[in-house]
Amino acid sequence: MRLSSSFLPTLKEVPAEAQIASHRFMLRTGMVRQMSSGIYAWLPAGLRVLNKIADIVREEQDAINAQEVLMPTLQSADLWKRSGRYDAYGPEMLRIVDRHKRDLLYGPTNEEMITDIFDQFVTSYKGLPALLYQIQWKFRDEIRPRFGVMRGREFYMKDGYSFDLDYDSAVVTYHKMMLAYLRTFQRIGVKAIPMLADTGPIGGDLSHEFIILAPTGESGIFFDSAFAEQNWLEMPVDINDKDSLAAFFKRMTSFYAATDEKHDEAEWEKVPQERKLEGRGIEVGQIFYFGTKYTESMDVSVTGSDSKKIYPHMGSYGIGVSRLVGAIIESSHDENGIIWPDAVAPFKAVIINLGMKDQACKDVCEALYQTDPENFLYDDRDERAGAKFADADLMGHPWQIIVGPRGVAQNVVEVKRRKTGQRAEVPVDQVLDYLSSHQD
Amino acid sequence: MRLSSSFLPTLKEVPAEAQIASHRFMLRTGMVRQMSSGIYAWLPAGLRVLNKIADIVREEQDAINAQEVLMPTLQSADLWKRSGRYDAYGPEMLRIVDRHKRDLLYGPTNEEMITDIFDQFVTSYKGLPALLYQIQWKFRDEIRPRFGVMRGREFYMKDGYSFDLDYDSAVVTYHKMMLAYLRTFQRIGVKAIPMLADTGPIGGDLSHEFIILAPTGESGIFFDSAFAEQNWLEMPVDINDKDSLAAFFKRMTSFYAATDEKHDEAEWEKVPQERKLEGRGIEVGQIFYFGTKYTESMDVSVTGSDSKKIYPHMGSYGIGVSRLVGAIIESSHDENGIIWPDAVAPFKAVIINLGMKDQACKDVCEALYQTDPENFLYDDRDERAGAKFADADLMGHPWQIIVGPRGVAQNVVEVKRRKTGQRAEVPVDQVLDYLSSHQD
Repeated sequence: MRLSSSFLPTLKEVPAEAQIASHRFMLRTGMVRQMSSGIYAWLPAGLRVLNKIADIVREEQDAINAQEVLMPTLQSADLWKRSGRYDAYGPEMLRIVDRHKRDLLYGPTNEEMITDIFDQFVTSYKGLPALLYQIQWKFRDEIRPRFGVMRGREFYMKDGYSFDLDYDSAVVTYHKMMLAYLRTFQRIGVKAIPMLADTGPIGGDLSHEFIILAPTGESGIFFDSAFAEQNWLEMPVDINDKDSLAAFFKRMTSFYAATDEKHDEAEWEKVPQERKLEGRGIEVGQIFYFGTKYTESMDVSVTGSDSKKIYPHMGSYGIGVSRLVGAIIESSHDENGIIWPDAVAPFKAVIINLGMKDQACKDVCEALYQTDPENFLYDDRDERAGAKFADADLMGHPWQIIVGPRGVAQNVVEVKRRKTGQRAEVPVDQVLDYLSSHQD
Repeated sequence: MRLSSSFLPTLKEVPAEAQIASHRFMLRTGMVRQMSSGIYAWLPAGLRVLNKIADIVREEQDAINAQEVLMPTLQSADLWKRSGRYDAYGPEMLRIVDRHKRDLLYGPTNEEMITDIFDQFVTSYKGLPALLYQIQWKFRDEIRPRFGVMRGREFYMKDGYSFDLDYDSAVVTYHKMMLAYLRTFQRIGVKAIPMLADTGPIGGDLSHEFIILAPTGESGIFFDSAFAEQNWLEMPVDINDKDSLAAFFKRMTSFYAATDEKHDEAEWEKVPQERKLEGRGIEVGQIFYFGTKYTESMDVSVTGSDSKKIYPHMGSYGIGVSRLVGAIIESSHDENGIIWPDAVAPFKAVIINLGMKDQACKDVCEALYQTDPENFLYDDRDERAGAKFADADLMGHPWQIIVGPRGVAQNVVEVKRRKTGQRAEVPVDQVLDYLSSHQD
């Protein structure tokens, strides 16, 4: 995109209501605009990040053969009366009455709806296991929305649901999902550590929260640093082999990781001193096996091979896609602005033209830009160099390609890596190679 | 996808409430499921079509340099009070009260919201023209939702908005959008004819509805068949040259096309008899220049080059994405099922295995399937041939690749084109070439 003709407005003033870095930077870089309390419009730069995260989430769900569906945002209250949650949910559920005086609600989550869909289409054990997910807008009427998109009211979330014939099969599904989540966060470029979460009356150990390390996080966390060094993308796991999945899961859970709620001092003592990491974190996902809670309460069953009635075992699997945008910035910024991981940056690189009146500079910029106009942002504004540098740091593009008259005369440009601040002079015809060979 | 392990359920019984073909076929093929009156969940096959349409819409909007944003589904009532439409809109607007007793609404359209966003970020004539769009869920509380996704309450729509400095510049934008729309519908594979629509108090001729020919359509239409033969994808139009755009627009509007509301018998008489086409049609899009209606009522202005206050001229541009899914089926089906245009079919082809117990058949199917598992559907179910053929016709895949023991023994498969019923014996190793060389 060309910055001069794009809707990528930056604001000079920091809005007063923004208390944390991600909220400030998202407003200043025009990624989002608040339209009502806790309700945001996503402008082009923000939307690009949101979509890139959603695409990675989608690819990893598809890789474990989860099937994508899309449920409506509005739901009938009747569905929630069947499960008994309509009265129990409380004031965070946005309740709506339509013109025919029927009770609707804006879905905060979809266990009831997916169970109802499953009920119509799957009647036999042969239809199991079933693994469905969606990426859709949801609404929770938070009493005090804050921290921008991190605790908004209308939010974008991947929610997945599984149906299995029995506990053993549900465990296999849980292991697959754990792998998909670890791969997803690693591809996005953040360290999200799964931590054992409360399973309530269900019991067992099949509930994990995924937490990103960030000083503004709501939970205290304790974990073994060896965990963060694992490469889940290169781990040889066969998702069609339950023993391979179980071995992976056992290895994964062998590293200590707990929020302060579940922290166990005795286990923590066993972690070698140099690998103990404490800090604060932001929850960006959760996976949870909850058995037959909804299938029983809604009386949704299948017929087994022996013709007996079976209540499928369910799990649910969430990733806060819009929340992640804020959480990534919380965990990756400095005083000058955002530092985007390569995989989710709105643009791969910004081309900064310092010689707007110099034909040679313009030619070099234009030629570079045309090699990948979809992924390069070309700062072709009539602005001083200082303003262009400041905006580039603020917006956090992984690379800055700085094109000035002096360099161009020698056929070189300057390339700066945002994350490290490292600079290099690179011949014009080697810029693309330089970027791809110097990516992490 | 493998049909045996996919969530692609077909229903044998026709639901009683479905009066028209598209509604019946969408329910029978498990593309959607009704969750409340006029509110649908999209299952995998339906979602694939919805996304393919949205992607084509998006690419053609991006091609005219429209910028994608994403506005929230819920809006503050205050915004609509500013424009005066909050009271005027009537009972189709779904009005909501949140826990703090603030008035919200589920957006039926976004003129107010986009104007408010524009207001914050664009203050000078230098920011014009601005062209923004989104593809997002909307809600209209129809009194009698019917015809499935064609007249639902929660619906998916592309809505775009333009801001120009004056009328002349708004006309150029209008011409660009007309071109993008004609290209969009042609790529989707439907004949959508733009027809002059009512401009109300705005006047002029800058309002067109795009109408797909279908016997169940709500409007009577009259048009010159020469229109439908134009190839907009190969028309040499330079979108950066207003004269080129104007010439294209003049040519486009030289063909007679009108709904019964705007039908002009005298003009109709001038169309050669053999080119006169009459029928019924479904509206799937509208483009509309409405001047300073919202910028004046909401007092949103920019500063001109002479420092004077200017109210930008606006237009809005809609495409009913979820409605199109139904409309395409209305215009393209037979008694056996859907006939998908290639570009938006959920799958490019179905591989029908007639020899589930024959190792050679399984090997051929598997090898074909693996060449493109994302776009091929492999019918690997343990079903009779008749059921597989019927489902293939019902689901409307553009191609059927029929693999049976007798053919495989001679190293051939049968390829059937759904649209024409034409069949051919094709050597196994030439199937992919055959499909690509026999596409329209």
